[in-house]
Amino acid sequence: MAIVVGYVPTKEGRAALRRAAEEALLRKSKLIVINSNRGGRDYDGDEAQRFEAELSRIQGELDGHGVEHEVRQLVRGNEPAEDLIAVAEEEQADFIVIGLRRRTPVGKLILGSNAQRILLDASCPVLAVKASS
Amino acid sequence: MAIVVGYVPTKEGRAALRRAAEEALLRKSKLIVINSNRGGRDYDGDEAQRFEAELSRIQGELDGHGVEHEVRQLVRGNEPAEDLIAVAEEEQADFIVIGLRRRTPVGKLILGSNAQRILLDASCPVLAVKASS
Repeated sequence: MAIVVGYVPTKEGRAALRRAAEEALLRKSKLIVINSNRGGRDYDGDEAQRFEAELSRIQGELDGHGVEHEVRQLVRGNEPAEDLIAVAEEEQADFIVIGLRRRTPVGKLILGSNAQRILLDASCPVLAVKASS
Repeated sequence: MAIVVGYVPTKEGRAALRRAAEEALLRKSKLIVINSNRGGRDYDGDEAQRFEAELSRIQGELDGHGVEHEVRQLVRGNEPAEDLIAVAEEEQADFIVIGLRRRTPVGKLILGSNAQRILLDASCPVLAVKASS
């Protein structure tokens, strides 16, 4: 059993990582962080640094509790959604954790295509979390 | 802390209820089942009976483990999504559990409006589960 989360260096991605780690600790499930590494557009160096820092902190905490974890670098040329779903199936994951953007009071936000795809196509449950502010 | 789930007498609703109960047991969180009770369209007596049977079984199991639970009958005239979100906020829920329909191999399914609303508007995490077959 495992908890699967994407390597997504944004505020929402960080919230998802944090929650995924909490769930891994609670269940003593392995945490798998999937880096589909497409870089390019939307890349934000500051967020990437924050994500890395959070990841290091989490890895230390999981080590401290004897909970297995790994970062998988995938270069399969897939959409991130496909990678997450495929790994979740291979590992019979407890669930996939994804981050969602918060809707603004006036904004009519629709779900991003990756999020929607994971929600609809993953056979395991999907835990959707928001950033805390 | 609590796990919040809708009273939704469908195959997906039953899967959500089951998973919500598992999570409540794991965390020793209270399980709150929200019945917005709009009846009418889509009402399926067989599914309602199955849901009731599952709920009774689950209530027994939660009692056996000393985990608190309740069914709240809400007649606020709200959409079910609003009721779930409101209760989740009042109770500072761990998360809301919702059921999603499985996409058919050919079908281009989009998320139902209630599901989409809960995913976008709930401030707590949302766990989306599918029926097992």
